[in-house]
Amino acid sequence: MSRLIYLDNAATTRVKDDVLQQMLPYFTQSYGNPSSVYGFAQEARAAVEKARTRAAELIGATPHEIYFTSGGSEADNWALKSVVKTYAAKGKHIITSKIEHSAILKTCEKLHNEGVEITYLDVDENGKISLEELSNAIREDTILISIMTANNEVGTLQPIKEIGRIAHEKGVLFHTDAVQAYGHIPIDVNEFNIDLLSASGHKLHGPKGVGILYVRTGTQIGSFIDGGAQERGRRAGTINTPGIVGMGAAALYAKENLIKAKEQQESLRDYFIKKVLSDIPYTKLNGHVSDRLPGNLNFTFSFASGESLIILLDQAGICASSGSACASGSTSPSHVLTAMGLSEKQAGSSVRFSLSDETTKEEIDITVEELKRIVTKLRGMSLEYKNFLNDGLQSK
Amino acid sequence: MSRLIYLDNAATTRVKDDVLQQMLPYFTQSYGNPSSVYGFAQEARAAVEKARTRAAELIGATPHEIYFTSGGSEADNWALKSVVKTYAAKGKHIITSKIEHSAILKTCEKLHNEGVEITYLDVDENGKISLEELSNAIREDTILISIMTANNEVGTLQPIKEIGRIAHEKGVLFHTDAVQAYGHIPIDVNEFNIDLLSASGHKLHGPKGVGILYVRTGTQIGSFIDGGAQERGRRAGTINTPGIVGMGAAALYAKENLIKAKEQQESLRDYFIKKVLSDIPYTKLNGHVSDRLPGNLNFTFSFASGESLIILLDQAGICASSGSACASGSTSPSHVLTAMGLSEKQAGSSVRFSLSDETTKEEIDITVEELKRIVTKLRGMSLEYKNFLNDGLQSK
Repeated sequence: MSRLIYLDNAATTRVKDDVLQQMLPYFTQSYGNPSSVYGFAQEARAAVEKARTRAAELIGATPHEIYFTSGGSEADNWALKSVVKTYAAKGKHIITSKIEHSAILKTCEKLHNEGVEITYLDVDENGKISLEELSNAIREDTILISIMTANNEVGTLQPIKEIGRIAHEKGVLFHTDAVQAYGHIPIDVNEFNIDLLSASGHKLHGPKGVGILYVRTGTQIGSFIDGGAQERGRRAGTINTPGIVGMGAAALYAKENLIKAKEQQESLRDYFIKKVLSDIPYTKLNGHVSDRLPGNLNFTFSFASGESLIILLDQAGICASSGSACASGSTSPSHVLTAMGLSEKQAGSSVRFSLSDETTKEEIDITVEELKRIVTKLRGMSLEYKNFLNDGLQSK
Repeated sequence: MSRLIYLDNAATTRVKDDVLQQMLPYFTQSYGNPSSVYGFAQEARAAVEKARTRAAELIGATPHEIYFTSGGSEADNWALKSVVKTYAAKGKHIITSKIEHSAILKTCEKLHNEGVEITYLDVDENGKISLEELSNAIREDTILISIMTANNEVGTLQPIKEIGRIAHEKGVLFHTDAVQAYGHIPIDVNEFNIDLLSASGHKLHGPKGVGILYVRTGTQIGSFIDGGAQERGRRAGTINTPGIVGMGAAALYAKENLIKAKEQQESLRDYFIKKVLSDIPYTKLNGHVSDRLPGNLNFTFSFASGESLIILLDQAGICASSGSACASGSTSPSHVLTAMGLSEKQAGSSVRFSLSDETTKEEIDITVEELKRIVTKLRGMSLEYKNFLNDGLQSK
């Protein structure tokens, strides 16, 4: 089948043609090392700084607060591992949530093994943390609160502004993994009192292999990759000019189109939700119904395995995901869905769809039709579903 | 001036047109996340594994021993910081040299602050370590020897095979920063008993922002960037498909052209050396005369400032460097040249030229002519040079 309906934009996005065009000169023409002093490197240097400004402006930051990394995972690792060292004198307690991305959770695990104490906040059935629980968790020795802006699996938005206010009032640093949110919803690091923010280029139609760590002026943070004097001595390694230019171009595109793209995807998303819930019985939407990423949908299709759904959707030319691409190959149920109260079985019957501004209504219609067919087929093979129906008939 | 003679290939190289062509489909067409399970991601997944094989074959490794990173600095950081943790039970002593790249030296500094003992081996006037000194430095608690394959400033090749043999005999892990050597001289990780090797794509006409860490099977190494299950759980972060494809393409190109490119550059290099030393008095070649990278030249032009030389060469359309691009902006003299016994003044009068297989004899001829003119001009402005000449006349 040659048809491709790509509904896994939370895993990665297509690089916009114009973004790629802006990157191209820096591979074979202005290829000089931006750290070199001669004139030939000047164009690359200038392009990197233009990209830094663009990446900053998307979140109301100043350019010198932006450090380019190899992606969101590096930024998350850097933020947490470095704060633990630079704020060791204050304490060794970090507050995060149970539904963070593995780049946060695995890093916390490692830090815990090294003596850092971690509080993992619960989330409610919609995937939201409790601000009261957060406030109560803050201790004298709490050095960092790390809560994601938006969840990668269910799209739930956290009350970032309120979290930032609480952190600010208590004098605790606030880091947010905004990998899924950056460029998709409005973020203002000043309004939200964000001290550290991670983002990635390839989630907003930029290239893979580049990301940022925003570090508020005054926040003490050491280097994670040590070596050369790049990025004002805070991130060693030859500056990835084309990647950074691509990230900047994607940030500019996102800024200019944010409201339009957001409204367009929200409209398609809600249409998609409505059709699925009305057309396919025993189906549930996971995540908050309105406080969610514009392009995210996550459904539990009872009596159907998520894995089988993904495979049959794939055969129909539709790309969807049973969770985080970063966790692919893992057979354990989603830690996000179970933290939200879903049973392992329910979590295993869940599928994520994620839209982009390139997604069309026609693609949604086709997907819903295919979903109907596939869910019906899988339920037809399910003994459990048969028993459920028989129980229902008997109880009548 | 529109002329460009690029003689700073040790800082970075032009991406080969064919390498870029191979990368392009993975930005806008086969852009799927290689970790995703559906068919659309299969092409990206296969391309990454093909690149892994190519990157491995250049050094006689097997593909599963190659881990893709964001570059050489990350690979260096990962190797050292991880070995210190996984081999903590054995000891906490590392042996390195005084002329390593800053990605090694700054990492060692940080590790030292955390309680790791570091022995920095001296080098002789050619930039070579002493094997005897190395042997004597190995202790019961030595866990790692990290010696670069080739120096980035003076091009000197270390006796890697003998270092590997000594490390192997003493049961100590051997890491080599091969960023400058990978794809430029023959390296065989098995013949040389290398356990860990760092390399970078953009030093061999691949893209910036991608590198490898080779990890010999059986070598215990944890993750440096924690999170998703990518790279067999050892390096989290979305797989940078286009970058990795570019690195693989560059590795294949290097493998197929290694001997020819090496001989061509050696011939141009030796021609360049001969002309400079014969045409410009009071000039000295730094680094080993024959055991050096095919494309590296490093001269001390007495009575002329390296910085001024770089500026005037730049005005003549020639890109050269006064040391490592990673250390640009630093005004301190090169740690490599001073370790080799040069005075601060001599180190400050030194310039590096680095060739590629795209460098022509005509470019060398122009560069030597410009060097003659510029050195004469700078010396004409030098009071020290005037005094030196007067002293010489007086002593006659």
